[in-house]
Amino acid sequence: MNKFIEDLASSRPTPGGGAAAAMAGAMAAGLVEMTAKLTEQTKRIEQIKQSGAELRKRLLELAEEDCQAFEAVMAAYKNKTGKKEALEWAMRVPEETMRICQEVEKLAQEMVETGNKNAISDAKSAVYLAQAAQKSAQENVEINKIALTKLKNNE
Amino acid sequence: MNKFIEDLASSRPTPGGGAAAAMAGAMAAGLVEMTAKLTEQTKRIEQIKQSGAELRKRLLELAEEDCQAFEAVMAAYKNKTGKKEALEWAMRVPEETMRICQEVEKLAQEMVETGNKNAISDAKSAVYLAQAAQKSAQENVEINKIALTKLKNNE
Repeated sequence: MNKFIEDLASSRPTPGGGAAAAMAGAMAAGLVEMTAKLTEQTKRIEQIKQSGAELRKRLLELAEEDCQAFEAVMAAYKNKTGKKEALEWAMRVPEETMRICQEVEKLAQEMVETGNKNAISDAKSAVYLAQAAQKSAQENVEINKIALTKLKNNE
Repeated sequence: MNKFIEDLASSRPTPGGGAAAAMAGAMAAGLVEMTAKLTEQTKRIEQIKQSGAELRKRLLELAEEDCQAFEAVMAAYKNKTGKKEALEWAMRVPEETMRICQEVEKLAQEMVETGNKNAISDAKSAVYLAQAAQKSAQENVEINKIALTKLKNNE
């Protein structure tokens, strides 16, 4: 994690806010899994554990994809070709991050209500991190949407 | 980062929400640094860059300290000695995380207002992550405060 955060702090534009959003969402999903593991096992808790693991893995992939998509945007502007396709990709990644973090937030909320009370601060942390991830991803959707609109108006 | 998130997801209680809060804060500080590096250099931007780096480093230390403090709490309960000192330590760590993330949020807000507009989604992401980190750390202060009160009432 320290390496990722160092890269975040560097002057290179990737990883940026979109990747950080996906990482925050992955931390939230990880906390959902942990609280589920610390709770009495029922069929529903078992499901939450599995969903948490799947969402966490997808979010880690999205953090990487966000960097690739943004690098494609920079290359497209440099080479003056493929801008539209690159911007659409760079918009799709945080859109999926938002959707997935919404699911993570719901599971985290369920763990706040039904999970082991000794781990309630962990479940609440998962809620807050999933919310921040959604808001951050949304900013990244918006900034690419604005660039796409500008591009279409200049065509 | 992937290793940290896997550990978060495991059934071991550390790292938990307190460490995740510090990590989210460190990501926010990293984004503050990045946006400052992408902005025209003035004396103030230079200061923000340096403060961001210092706060990021302290938050990474606090993430580790949070695990150590919680392990000390578990050991104290197991050995029935040193509970009060361990709980006080476990409360001090997220208290400092909160304070530092408040500073990170202020710097991030300043970057939203005065930073390179092309990186505004990164600066806004830093604000959201720093806010979530504060709320998560606060939950961890509270849960330890409750345990301390219980302990004093049983003495």
